[in-house]
Amino acid sequence: MTLRMKYYHNHLLCLFVLSLGLLFGCNDTSEKPTEASNTSTHPSLILTSQGVKDIRANLGNIPIFDKTLAAAQKEIDAAIKTGFDVPVPKDYSGGYSHETHKRNYILMQKAGVLYQILDNEIYANFVKDMLFAYAKQYPTLPIHPKTRSYARGKLFWQCLNDSNWLVYASQAYDCIYEYLTVEERNTLETDLFRPFADHISKDNPQFFNRVHNHATWGNAAVGMIALAMGDDALLDRALNGVQVENFDANEKDNDGGYIRKNGQKIGFYANINEPFSPDGYFTEGPYYQRYASYPFLIFAQALQNKKPEHKVFEYKDSVLLKSVNALLNLSNAKGEFFLLNDAQKGMSYYNASLISAVNITYHFGGNNPELLSIAEKQGKVTLDDSGLSVALDIAAGKAKPFDKKSIELSDGANGDEGAVGILRSDDLEVVFKYTAHGLSHGHYDKLSFALFEDGEEVVQDYGMSRYVNVERKGGGNYLKENTTWAKQSISHNTLVQNETSHFKGKYDIGSQHHSESYIFNTDNYNVQVASAKEYNAYPGTKMHRTMVIIKDGDAKPYILDILKVESEQNHQYDLPFYYLGQLIHTSFEYKKPKTPSVLGAENGYQHLYKEATGISSGDNIKLNWLLNNKFYTYSAVTSKNDELIIARIGASDPEFNLRNEPALILRKKNTKNTVFASIIESHGTYDPVSELAINAYSNIKTIAVVYDTEEYTAVRFENKAGESHLFIISNINASEEAKHAIKINNKNYQWIGSYYFK
Amino acid sequence: MTLRMKYYHNHLLCLFVLSLGLLFGCNDTSEKPTEASNTSTHPSLILTSQGVKDIRANLGNIPIFDKTLAAAQKEIDAAIKTGFDVPVPKDYSGGYSHETHKRNYILMQKAGVLYQILDNEIYANFVKDMLFAYAKQYPTLPIHPKTRSYARGKLFWQCLNDSNWLVYASQAYDCIYEYLTVEERNTLETDLFRPFADHISKDNPQFFNRVHNHATWGNAAVGMIALAMGDDALLDRALNGVQVENFDANEKDNDGGYIRKNGQKIGFYANINEPFSPDGYFTEGPYYQRYASYPFLIFAQALQNKKPEHKVFEYKDSVLLKSVNALLNLSNAKGEFFLLNDAQKGMSYYNASLISAVNITYHFGGNNPELLSIAEKQGKVTLDDSGLSVALDIAAGKAKPFDKKSIELSDGANGDEGAVGILRSDDLEVVFKYTAHGLSHGHYDKLSFALFEDGEEVVQDYGMSRYVNVERKGGGNYLKENTTWAKQSISHNTLVQNETSHFKGKYDIGSQHHSESYIFNTDNYNVQVASAKEYNAYPGTKMHRTMVIIKDGDAKPYILDILKVESEQNHQYDLPFYYLGQLIHTSFEYKKPKTPSVLGAENGYQHLYKEATGISSGDNIKLNWLLNNKFYTYSAVTSKNDELIIARIGASDPEFNLRNEPALILRKKNTKNTVFASIIESHGTYDPVSELAINAYSNIKTIAVVYDTEEYTAVRFENKAGESHLFIISNINASEEAKHAIKINNKNYQWIGSYYFK
Repeated sequence: MTLRMKYYHNHLLCLFVLSLGLLFGCNDTSEKPTEASNTSTHPSLILTSQGVKDIRANLGNIPIFDKTLAAAQKEIDAAIKTGFDVPVPKDYSGGYSHETHKRNYILMQKAGVLYQILDNEIYANFVKDMLFAYAKQYPTLPIHPKTRSYARGKLFWQCLNDSNWLVYASQAYDCIYEYLTVEERNTLETDLFRPFADHISKDNPQFFNRVHNHATWGNAAVGMIALAMGDDALLDRALNGVQVENFDANEKDNDGGYIRKNGQKIGFYANINEPFSPDGYFTEGPYYQRYASYPFLIFAQALQNKKPEHKVFEYKDSVLLKSVNALLNLSNAKGEFFLLNDAQKGMSYYNASLISAVNITYHFGGNNPELLSIAEKQGKVTLDDSGLSVALDIAAGKAKPFDKKSIELSDGANGDEGAVGILRSDDLEVVFKYTAHGLSHGHYDKLSFALFEDGEEVVQDYGMSRYVNVERKGGGNYLKENTTWAKQSISHNTLVQNETSHFKGKYDIGSQHHSESYIFNTDNYNVQVASAKEYNAYPGTKMHRTMVIIKDGDAKPYILDILKVESEQNHQYDLPFYYLGQLIHTSFEYKKPKTPSVLGAENGYQHLYKEATGISSGDNIKLNWLLNNKFYTYSAVTSKNDELIIARIGASDPEFNLRNEPALILRKKNTKNTVFASIIESHGTYDPVSELAINAYSNIKTIAVVYDTEEYTAVRFENKAGESHLFIISNINASEEAKHAIKINNKNYQWIGSYYFK
Repeated sequence: MTLRMKYYHNHLLCLFVLSLGLLFGCNDTSEKPTEASNTSTHPSLILTSQGVKDIRANLGNIPIFDKTLAAAQKEIDAAIKTGFDVPVPKDYSGGYSHETHKRNYILMQKAGVLYQILDNEIYANFVKDMLFAYAKQYPTLPIHPKTRSYARGKLFWQCLNDSNWLVYASQAYDCIYEYLTVEERNTLETDLFRPFADHISKDNPQFFNRVHNHATWGNAAVGMIALAMGDDALLDRALNGVQVENFDANEKDNDGGYIRKNGQKIGFYANINEPFSPDGYFTEGPYYQRYASYPFLIFAQALQNKKPEHKVFEYKDSVLLKSVNALLNLSNAKGEFFLLNDAQKGMSYYNASLISAVNITYHFGGNNPELLSIAEKQGKVTLDDSGLSVALDIAAGKAKPFDKKSIELSDGANGDEGAVGILRSDDLEVVFKYTAHGLSHGHYDKLSFALFEDGEEVVQDYGMSRYVNVERKGGGNYLKENTTWAKQSISHNTLVQNETSHFKGKYDIGSQHHSESYIFNTDNYNVQVASAKEYNAYPGTKMHRTMVIIKDGDAKPYILDILKVESEQNHQYDLPFYYLGQLIHTSFEYKKPKTPSVLGAENGYQHLYKEATGISSGDNIKLNWLLNNKFYTYSAVTSKNDELIIARIGASDPEFNLRNEPALILRKKNTKNTVFASIIESHGTYDPVSELAINAYSNIKTIAVVYDTEEYTAVRFENKAGESHLFIISNINASEEAKHAIKINNKNYQWIGSYYFK
């Protein structure tokens, strides 16, 4: 049964005389609030009574707020005119019932806020009617008919989306709380909110009692409705989890992640404590941090407003506030998040949850003026106390550029489980991953990297195999290729041994380990070094990778990549290089058969076509390609008889789920110890209008590993002008105070610090 | 031998005191002009004496001119500081000697103009020094060592580039003519210009005496140096060709085009007369028109300025002026030219030659204010009389938007050799090609089409297989895949019979025929119809294609495509559909083997991988795809057992020259007569930031050919709301006055005009 309501009654008239700064009541409503308490405690979640007064006083003089408000008003006025639908739950994401329920909670939240700010009861009535439609439907609902989730919701196929709904609906309820009669509140709380909160907590502890973005949403949902209803017992459930007698420590969710580790703490605080490192890095990666940041921060804001004694923003050395800074730093020049673990391309700090995050962090986190420039780019603010702060200070001209520099962000609750290193130089950004596994969304890609130029991917991380909310692609959910391809090591720019993924591609093993940061030294802008080690991905094999971004005079910076591998036994080593764009030229000869073959049988190899192969003569190899009208070259050291595989993604993909993008794979067979060394340059441009190709060729003449022992590895390279550079890294002493002296080719080198470069 | 000169002498000082609007002479030059004629006839090509006075008087008050001038001055000042090089000719395009000689002529032209406008002799001296360096080198030069061209130059590998050089050098010479002594002029004319002009004309009549963009450059080069030198005999050679006794009518150039047809007129006038239709369409297509438009218009301008009695702009009913309007109309919303015949993607009206074309057309062609808005977008003007006109009128606020509407442009010297039809509705643009062959750059793609949305290609024309000036790809020249793939019929969105190209892919045959325009009726914006016939591509087979762009209420317009085929015998028919983007969903089942096979052996089929195949049940088929965050669907009528081939470009491509883009091919076997009918919709959007998929599904429920006889073809389609539409076309009477009456499924339809739509 579907409830559809139209608002073609006299409320509508009010809309036409409403304008910014003009506040009045609509006197001809057919329903009236009664018993509105004089000692107002509502609104108190995202809006406060004082905040509402301040907002009303400033309307018309806070451009970014006024603009956001006008857009919200336009949207909600249109929605009121159209009417809403509360369909019977039926679909996966992308389907009608899913998308409609999703739209409804967003409309309710906005309408609630509009009611407070504009003081027009048509908005309160809209929220009330919708909530009552849900209160009528909810008691009739069975568990959602779609069975894929480990924790099925009622409105949606998974409790996660039900929690989304409640986080927003709580805010709407808080806004119209005093507009409702006591009896109306009782109906809503009894028929809708309490059973709703119970379903996503008590009935689904395997969802609620996790440390995972799912549980964070659940905790926030229950916590916010608890705050709105004034229910401290329920609030405690949100903060500290629901008590259940037994749980199965081996149970996994449908993404393959563990539900809960033995003895693990639960509830909202546990969800802050565990996944965030002291630097504010969220172990699942920025894509999911973006997703989780909304419940983290919106609930923290509500808790701070209503129960300041919790001092939630000070928890764990203010890690929630730090996390927003970390997240902004994990975006490229266009504001798009780096692709660490499961992540869809294009997600950015323009996402609505980041507007909240930036505004809340500004308001509660010491008014960092750099956040204002992000808010300016976002072009919107939250319609609440935080958004007012931002809008006022933007109007006062306080904004400063958000200056993204090279940064290392530790992973792990205690910051001792590896890190992600971002090297930035001019328009280039290198993302180097040496983190922990990243919970159930983690990929098996220790020491992988990606390269961006001016916000565009150049050497890509594939991201996840999923078309979020595109129903025709597996209901918009994770595709099976996410497991068979996107999570596997070979789909990343990192080393693969014997065609098996790191940790055998097993979450149980991978989640017990993390890489180690070795050097992160960006003191010298012209030579920035990130170095990390991984000893567990392949037992008995040590991987040590060093990425250096070098700025040499006026020319563009370039990247030196040194990957040292030591093993007890012989192995096959594959190092893929996922350049994006059109291959222009290779320095090596290759043979392209009539049709491609499939590169391998499993662990992601089944998804790669082998298009062409060459055998190295032992010379440097070069791959020159064109992307976005820029010329790039990859110059790599090889050994004689190394295989050079030109590959393309897309094999074993019966439904065309994968993108058919290229890769070059360097393959060494029967090798114990080796060093992969290469340089990546962005050296030229092409203009299709003038048809001029400028600096189409690499500037690197030669690159060679000139020294390699347990203690030191040295790489020398020479450019076309004949200028030679030498980079030496100490493999065993990362101290910046250590003194080193070695002899290479009969020449002595002495230096202090973890590396030498000249 | 290389001449390199530095300008670190006292001329440089003058640069630092120069500023816009301040004019003075540099008194400390070491060389002085003598005998400057008082009855000045120079400059007289692109600048006139009066023009120079007017420019000087307006400097500082004509922003777009001032900005262009400042940029030119900055560029030339830097070049003077660096010095120039006149290297020994050696390379193909993209190589050092090629690019340097190319840069030199551009520098000379600009420096000459700067001398006139700024009256500073340092610029004149720069031109003089460079010309003398060439005058010293030229007599020593053999034919260029690279052998690929049918007409080798001396500075460059082909006479074409030598002609480019002379077109620019003539302008530079004209600008400094009076700065030089008589003796100096004699040296330059004797050692450089006359032998240079002879080489590209007398010595290479197979280049000069053509009707082809090559010859146009040659004619303009000789004509402009003739005007600069005041040599009427040489001017006559430019206008009417060089007289040679014998020529071989079967000789071809290295693109496979005929050098010259028997009895064909030659020279500049012939080159205006033949390739331009009365509508101004240039038969080679817009990419080459852009290239040829510079010599056409710059020489016409010079001729008009110096010899107005020729009335060159009035020639053939002002076709040169009309051609610029046609060319601008052959660009998409981003200003990029449609890809008709050989064409590189991304070429647009931002190209320098279009700046000249727009300015000259404005100045000499009646001051159409819409051209000013193009000039504004270009952001530059020519530094001459024409550019001054444009700049003055932009400054006076006279610019109006250039409103591109649906338009049909006839092909052929008399406008009776087919046409190209552009249908425009909202953001969609359909390019429908039913032209003549297009000389040696023509593709075998009768009745093909391409679709653009908001300036982005949606259903593509592959363009040419060439990376212009990217030396690493075949010297920047045409790749062999241009012949084996890009020119072939199967690489286009048109019908292919029995896996052979139109006209057997033979230029000799194709150049004898053209398609016929049948209907072009865009009177009703909501139903715009272009229809054309092709009876010669496959002897014994008649093709009749109708493209209709339909705008139905507020929704986006969509395209109805009806291709009727009649033949005397059974054939295999393939209709490829080159959508760009990620396949999301097909309505039909297909099987994707482990590895792709190659689709065919020749005629372009060898370059397609067959990735998957399905067999039609006889129902409509749908292909839904995502491109640029927009959802598109192709819905097509099929017959039971039609083959559905999912293909990808890239087979038989040993050097990775091709782009690996997808196609869907509908294949009918053993068929005489049939109708292909389909609808293409742009119906939805995806937002990677909000992750919302809006209207991801096609709005078309069914499409069917409900009537098909020799006289009429009717297609009915229904949308999801149950609204049904019927389109009927008269196949034999295109008159808009004709009365029609037919019965379809027992219902009578009557109408007046070439089609019925309701």
